[in-house]
Amino acid sequence: MLRVGIVGASGYTGGELARILALHPAVELTVATSRSHAGKRLSQGYPHLAGIVDIVCEDLQGSELADRADLFFTAVPHQTAMAIVPELLQAGKKVIDLSADFRLDDPVVYEAWYQPHTAQEYLAEAVYGLPEINREKIAAARLVANPGCYPTSIILALAPLLKNGLLDPATIIADSKSGTSGAGRSAQVGSLFCEVTDGFRAYKVGEHRHTPEIEQELAKLAGSQLTVSFTPHLLPISRGILSTIYGALTKEVDQQELYELCTAFYRDEKFVRICRPGNFPATQYVRGSNYCDIGSKVDTRTGRVVLVSVIDNLVKGAAGQAVQNMNIVSGFAESLGLDTVPLFP
Amino acid sequence: MLRVGIVGASGYTGGELARILALHPAVELTVATSRSHAGKRLSQGYPHLAGIVDIVCEDLQGSELADRADLFFTAVPHQTAMAIVPELLQAGKKVIDLSADFRLDDPVVYEAWYQPHTAQEYLAEAVYGLPEINREKIAAARLVANPGCYPTSIILALAPLLKNGLLDPATIIADSKSGTSGAGRSAQVGSLFCEVTDGFRAYKVGEHRHTPEIEQELAKLAGSQLTVSFTPHLLPISRGILSTIYGALTKEVDQQELYELCTAFYRDEKFVRICRPGNFPATQYVRGSNYCDIGSKVDTRTGRVVLVSVIDNLVKGAAGQAVQNMNIVSGFAESLGLDTVPLFP
Amino acid sequence: MLRVGIVGASGYTGGELARILALHPAVELTVATSRSHAGKRLSQGYPHLAGIVDIVCEDLQGSELADRADLFFTAVPHQTAMAIVPELLQAGKKVIDLSADFRLDDPVVYEAWYQPHTAQEYLAEAVYGLPEINREKIAAARLVANPGCYPTSIILALAPLLKNGLLDPATIIADSKSGTSGAGRSAQVGSLFCEVTDGFRAYKVGEHRHTPEIEQELAKLAGSQLTVSFTPHLLPISRGILSTIYGALTKEVDQQELYELCTAFYRDEKFVRICRPGNFPATQYVRGSNYCDIGSKVDTRTGRVVLVSVIDNLVKGAAGQAVQNMNIVSGFAESLGLDTVPLFP
Amino acid sequence: MLRVGIVGASGYTGGELARILALHPAVELTVATSRSHAGKRLSQGYPHLAGIVDIVCEDLQGSELADRADLFFTAVPHQTAMAIVPELLQAGKKVIDLSADFRLDDPVVYEAWYQPHTAQEYLAEAVYGLPEINREKIAAARLVANPGCYPTSIILALAPLLKNGLLDPATIIADSKSGTSGAGRSAQVGSLFCEVTDGFRAYKVGEHRHTPEIEQELAKLAGSQLTVSFTPHLLPISRGILSTIYGALTKEVDQQELYELCTAFYRDEKFVRICRPGNFPATQYVRGSNYCDIGSKVDTRTGRVVLVSVIDNLVKGAAGQAVQNMNIVSGFAESLGLDTVPLFP
Repeated sequence: MLRVGIVGASGYTGGELARILALHPAVELTVATSRSHAGKRLSQGYPHLAGIVDIVCEDLQGSELADRADLFFTAVPHQTAMAIVPELLQAGKKVIDLSADFRLDDPVVYEAWYQPHTAQEYLAEAVYGLPEINREKIAAARLVANPGCYPTSIILALAPLLKNGLLDPATIIADSKSGTSGAGRSAQVGSLFCEVTDGFRAYKVGEHRHTPEIEQELAKLAGSQLTVSFTPHLLPISRGILSTIYGALTKEVDQQELYELCTAFYRDEKFVRICRPGNFPATQYVRGSNYCDIGSKVDTRTGRVVLVSVIDNLVKGAAGQAVQNMNIVSGFAESLGLDTVPLFP
Repeated sequence: MLRVGIVGASGYTGGELARILALHPAVELTVATSRSHAGKRLSQGYPHLAGIVDIVCEDLQGSELADRADLFFTAVPHQTAMAIVPELLQAGKKVIDLSADFRLDDPVVYEAWYQPHTAQEYLAEAVYGLPEINREKIAAARLVANPGCYPTSIILALAPLLKNGLLDPATIIADSKSGTSGAGRSAQVGSLFCEVTDGFRAYKVGEHRHTPEIEQELAKLAGSQLTVSFTPHLLPISRGILSTIYGALTKEVDQQELYELCTAFYRDEKFVRICRPGNFPATQYVRGSNYCDIGSKVDTRTGRVVLVSVIDNLVKGAAGQAVQNMNIVSGFAESLGLDTVPLFP
Repeated sequence: MLRVGIVGASGYTGGELARILALHPAVELTVATSRSHAGKRLSQGYPHLAGIVDIVCEDLQGSELADRADLFFTAVPHQTAMAIVPELLQAGKKVIDLSADFRLDDPVVYEAWYQPHTAQEYLAEAVYGLPEINREKIAAARLVANPGCYPTSIILALAPLLKNGLLDPATIIADSKSGTSGAGRSAQVGSLFCEVTDGFRAYKVGEHRHTPEIEQELAKLAGSQLTVSFTPHLLPISRGILSTIYGALTKEVDQQELYELCTAFYRDEKFVRICRPGNFPATQYVRGSNYCDIGSKVDTRTGRVVLVSVIDNLVKGAAGQAVQNMNIVSGFAESLGLDTVPLFP
Repeated sequence: MLRVGIVGASGYTGGELARILALHPAVELTVATSRSHAGKRLSQGYPHLAGIVDIVCEDLQGSELADRADLFFTAVPHQTAMAIVPELLQAGKKVIDLSADFRLDDPVVYEAWYQPHTAQEYLAEAVYGLPEINREKIAAARLVANPGCYPTSIILALAPLLKNGLLDPATIIADSKSGTSGAGRSAQVGSLFCEVTDGFRAYKVGEHRHTPEIEQELAKLAGSQLTVSFTPHLLPISRGILSTIYGALTKEVDQQELYELCTAFYRDEKFVRICRPGNFPATQYVRGSNYCDIGSKVDTRTGRVVLVSVIDNLVKGAAGQAVQNMNIVSGFAESLGLDTVPLFP
């Protein structure tokens, strides 16, 4: 049994990691840290885990922490992660970091969108943990930068087209909508039930920190620099991201050809489902699962393609993808512990 | 007191007309038709109206119907409307038609997106009832084609920019999200609570019938033909539309200039509120009201502007705008009966 | 114009008072206090009020506050209210207090459920502001204790039966369900969207502070002391309370008789609607309005009656009833400014 | 591998059976029937199952149906079930019937609440499939009557108290609230998103058909006849039932004693979790799982106990319990395929 630890267990991502790992046949959760819940069973804050994950949260650091597991999920905010990850790596542990701290290759870009980076020496070895694109590199990594939720939904949808040169990279617009769990479990007025329910809004228009991550990875796929218009919105749902993505086609392609191209691109991928022509995905059909469902529409009137992709932001957009990465770096079957069926209705 | 009638009172738009007209000081609801509810009080199907609008629904047509009021709201599906409206006009009545039947100038376009048009002789005189754009023409009309919900949200947001030549008309993309009341009150599996709640989807991608209406009216504002990428989505909320609209800027403009341009454009408009720079609207802030709130972002990185507009699809997107049009054609103060405050939370 | 002030304008109840008063034809909002929003327009925190209620919040106390209006709504937490109300009364102002501080006749009971009471000398003159029961006393009051939301829904439902001796007072059980706005606008994890949506729970079972208020007022109606089992629950909706109330019948009564008894009891009441036999109310049918809708079922199998009542907790359960009380103490028509139609869907 | 069939696969219960069985290691789904979806893959109607359960629905009956599996789940409406089940039994198959047709021992009672019973000869052998109460009988059954969702939540909560004589059987009141999936997937106006969301109502007050089932099973536990006041309500959530249950205590018991009594009663039960004193369950903490969580409050002021229980109505209230019963009658480990963790948030 691989001994694994969750650093930052009391947030929604930490809770989701605990949920998924509870049924994983090859790992044992040996440590869970949380400042706010130190000394309490994790299931006190998360009663759905009662009787299932009753581990007591601790407030640990340094070698005291590192000794307790072989692989760590760091589910803490950016800036906090960069203070913890180096110690774990130096102690010989593997790390799946769910923060943004090791996703951007260029520290200048990182510091333009975030704050000073104090662990730049690890950027070069960190592998961007999108298995469908980077599987081989992940397998060899000791530090995996787990992708952001929005980028996951956008990159997976665009990859087949960009790789095949079908899109003009200068024309990409991603209009994304996320469930409220993406805002985390911290008490703030903007996340209150009454502020969110029966409503809908855009936020951080043109300014969201996932923008450089999206652009960096799409540029690699396109083979050239690009900028993206990215607009996130807040949905009155708990889980789920849907991204509607627009781009100008560089050549004629019909709907069936596009469908076949996407299907072929993801032929061996267990967690990507391509919708048949005329069908589009919905967040509720991937709820609680590691799937990314993708639909497409060739719009001959405008010369654009419209892609629609959905994921569960806490699973494929965070904890599920992190476990998928753990499986890869640990040599387990990639879908081990992730064979759930989406929960609908 | 103006005698008014609602044709098709049992749908959500009909119910909303009844709600608004109940407190209108200058009109009296003298007839409400419904096949499915004929013989029943309207408040049996709509218990919120109990003791307020207890009119009995009837199944009337032709002169029997026309004699009962001076002005009619036709809140029936397209194709049904074109069979009723001519009779009412011939009887000398004024009509605010909430269907799509008289919105498109060109019957060829109508028939390409809908079905054969059997009342083409009325298309020339029908006035597109967007008061902020067409006020004078509406005042003189006997047939007002009340705009679609999506087009209202999109046209009002784009009008200041297109009128001022700030946008490249070939680059417009409208990503719209609507509450479920837009699907009407008919029993269908896709509108069931369990199918919609805690979920989100796109539908009719690149194929929605509001597309030609949007293009027609934007072309008038831009002064040239154009096509638009329009993607509607279904929100798990009852009321509200939010449209996120993208376009390439044709000249440099900063955020403050854009704000002032929009503010100036709508200076005397009671029902349009422009958000201050950095602020964006939310559907819950216009719930139950006739407001259209508009925010904007100049994105210098991409050279695009992003507009975000919200309306209550049943009010400014349907019944409220219809009453606004009635006020104009009847010579009432334009906001009479529409001075409500949005309901939040 | 009556000059009115809102003390504690930034909470949901304060915002709702502002919404209702904005359209009240006989009052002017001359002052709004808030510590957290001092110096900001109320509409910055409540964008739905933009352009409608743009008053700037202030942090005022004592005579500085008292001079600014003729009548005050104190929409602050219990314990805070008892420190403010005496000063306003001493300055000759009328007060509608929306806290619990002046609802209980007996300070011993108050202190058993809350904390020490430091303004006991005002308890005797405070009038429990349930207009349908206490109209005459309210008209003469200078201090009105606006009822709690749960008690309003329960007392109005039971009054006709208790007044007519139809119920055994020892058997009353009130199972109540409230929308989340009842928890206020303070940032706490338990009120986050993700904690509440798609879920349901009971809370403070057998321990909620509205219990002594319910028992006090029911005892007056029954003419004898009584205890009540009261269980509140948290609904994943913003507004609305539904109370399901059980009691053993003391004599045989059939459904039609009970209906007629309730109808007669509330014959002249504008804000109480009795459902016809076989019909039951729903919170969505009173949303945004001052109505209390009541249905009943005589269950001959068990010898019990089941009453179901609904209100909008922010309107009839708080701000609307407060304005109704203001109308009464000010000699206005009782429904002035409250003639809205519920918002459905 | 046990060959299992689902009769009535296109409803929510049928879809949930498919979801659960997909991951069950000891069974194979060999046939799924549906009239409305005959000829279509089940995953066309349920896209969450795409790539997981792509079985094609058929419209089969009689021996053609019986030959296709060894054990059948009949997930069809009452009255339809009684026409199908006998044929399957006669063909030597085992049946878990999820309808109400074989739950009531007395056909007279059945016919008073439903309609004529045409398969009365099977009532005597049918076993009421509540494993925590009837495990031994279920193990020997060939026809298991899977309990109703409401009865499951109520009986499990009351069993420890009634078995120990702690409650006066004449005083039981069950106030239950159900998610909307309980209304099924048929298209009806009352189940539309806009009719249900942001609202709450009681329905079938004192008249719900689960009443005799509740009374029958509680009577067995209490050892005497009894009637129950049972009120169902409709929650704006997809999944989940919460029952709040009241009863007069027959002897003094304190909170800790009650907790220990319940804990002892369910000591070996994997799917029942007893909340610690002061804690109460919430539907979102059992979402998607087979758990029943139970909390309790001894209210010394009123001499009553208040019990609060929650289940997922589609799992422990239907499909999950059916699989639990299948495991028992098939000799599998009782929790096989049901070891999921509830999905929160």
